[in-house]
Amino acid sequence: MLDLAIIGAGPAGLTAAIYAKRKGLSLAIFDSGSSGGKLNEIVVLENYPGFVSIKGLELAEKLREQLTNLNVEIKEFCKVKEILKEENGFKIVADCGKVSAKSVIIATGTAHRKLNAKGSEQFEGKGISYCATCDGPLHAGKDVAVIGGGNSGAMNALYLSKICNRVYLIEYMPKLKCEEAYLRKLKDANVKIITNAEVFEFFGKEVLEGLRYRDRVSQKQYELKVSGAFVYIGLKPNSELAKKLGCSLDDKGYIEVDQHMSTNMPGVFAAGDVTGIFQQLIVACAQGAIAAESAYRFLTD
Amino acid sequence: MLDLAIIGAGPAGLTAAIYAKRKGLSLAIFDSGSSGGKLNEIVVLENYPGFVSIKGLELAEKLREQLTNLNVEIKEFCKVKEILKEENGFKIVADCGKVSAKSVIIATGTAHRKLNAKGSEQFEGKGISYCATCDGPLHAGKDVAVIGGGNSGAMNALYLSKICNRVYLIEYMPKLKCEEAYLRKLKDANVKIITNAEVFEFFGKEVLEGLRYRDRVSQKQYELKVSGAFVYIGLKPNSELAKKLGCSLDDKGYIEVDQHMSTNMPGVFAAGDVTGIFQQLIVACAQGAIAAESAYRFLTD
Repeated sequence: MLDLAIIGAGPAGLTAAIYAKRKGLSLAIFDSGSSGGKLNEIVVLENYPGFVSIKGLELAEKLREQLTNLNVEIKEFCKVKEILKEENGFKIVADCGKVSAKSVIIATGTAHRKLNAKGSEQFEGKGISYCATCDGPLHAGKDVAVIGGGNSGAMNALYLSKICNRVYLIEYMPKLKCEEAYLRKLKDANVKIITNAEVFEFFGKEVLEGLRYRDRVSQKQYELKVSGAFVYIGLKPNSELAKKLGCSLDDKGYIEVDQHMSTNMPGVFAAGDVTGIFQQLIVACAQGAIAAESAYRFLTD
Repeated sequence: MLDLAIIGAGPAGLTAAIYAKRKGLSLAIFDSGSSGGKLNEIVVLENYPGFVSIKGLELAEKLREQLTNLNVEIKEFCKVKEILKEENGFKIVADCGKVSAKSVIIATGTAHRKLNAKGSEQFEGKGISYCATCDGPLHAGKDVAVIGGGNSGAMNALYLSKICNRVYLIEYMPKLKCEEAYLRKLKDANVKIITNAEVFEFFGKEVLEGLRYRDRVSQKQYELKVSGAFVYIGLKPNSELAKKLGCSLDDKGYIEVDQHMSTNMPGVFAAGDVTGIFQQLIVACAQGAIAAESAYRFLTD
């Protein structure tokens, strides 16, 4: 039986693995996709302490390198289907096999919220995307829309403005919610900002050809011809596994933790965006470190 | 009046400054010494996400570079003597002048605990040191002792083993408390581990010439001839400023904060080691980010 199973190999899970392994714990770490989590979608980080500027993919690679150095193998593309409470620990049932572990860290992150608009499902993967770094290059030289004016929307609009012809940044509220640092850059970039706008329809034949929105003040309707629409309207927790296991969730579905990252279940800890606490990379990493320390104490006390 | 004053330019304060500045806040950041805080004393980091291995001094330089890029000037060697509550904010009284700010982040870190042994004060700076990266090279080729077998003691013993003739690592308890990762390296290094040992005296003429310890099992006394003694027996919070201002401290003197890094005083936040929460670099940085976000919300809500 392993000391620890870590579910999710994003920044929180990877940092938990670094700390746990250095403490001498035996562990397995799983991810349903490739490791790196949200880092794989971050164009560029400018607020992570230690790097003036670094691509998300590059930082993910550095984290993997740290684990390789510690002889930790990440079980990628191995979806955990269930975590079962057993007498002396937990059984992790995954696509690639089963393992038993005395403690668990759940670091399953979040998924992108989808826009409630006509055609939203129809054009997903056919023009509608949640990852500009992944799908942006498909729209090189074309017009695209970014929906959502928070930091993610702003960062991705800036990224797209360098490869696309025209970028529309559409925000539901009267003004953008992103940091000042982004506002200044957006001013200089090839980005047309549209506020107070409610996107209600995507249209096209086989693939996306455009969208329609309503000006929330005048109630007038407008149409934009775009080949891509990148949606950044928030996140929702991937907390189904935790819920099924018996972890308490808050009213938004995030896993409830104390300052030691302990859930209500002894031996089960949570870290990263799935806890809903100020969802920033540096915070996710710190939570991973704390969760690993707490698991260590749980195992040794 | 500034939006924010940050007291302390260690990892927590510097990260708070990055986040606050990117949010568009006007700010001043003070340090009684050079910026970087404890980073300046860390030989090498192997558990900070993003670097397989990096010197503390190098990471401190990178943090400063991030602030330079954001046009934030750090007021170094400017000791804050008092933080006064005023009607609409706070007055910061420092060596290099006074500023007023609507909110404050206290990130004053910790100081090294001193050993309660004869000669401890007499030989401070004359052989007794709390910083191997600073003073280790003075003892190149000589014998030295490191007192305290936690992660700090272990890391610094390893560092000194590369430049000194012989390194004694002295631990009060029956075994070292450091991570497994260090234990393995210590085995291979030129470090003699002495456990169950209570150092009770430092001796010498002008400068340190050695120390005496008692074996806590046999009660026998031993003498070691060393030119340097590096003390890593724990930390104590630099929380005097916070206390005087009216912040609640816990029974060990750490500043009490909630998960938003809010203290009991509206507009006053704390971050980093001075909060006493799992004192790791990554955690200090995350707390700095959270404190900046909380200050921003305090100022804008």
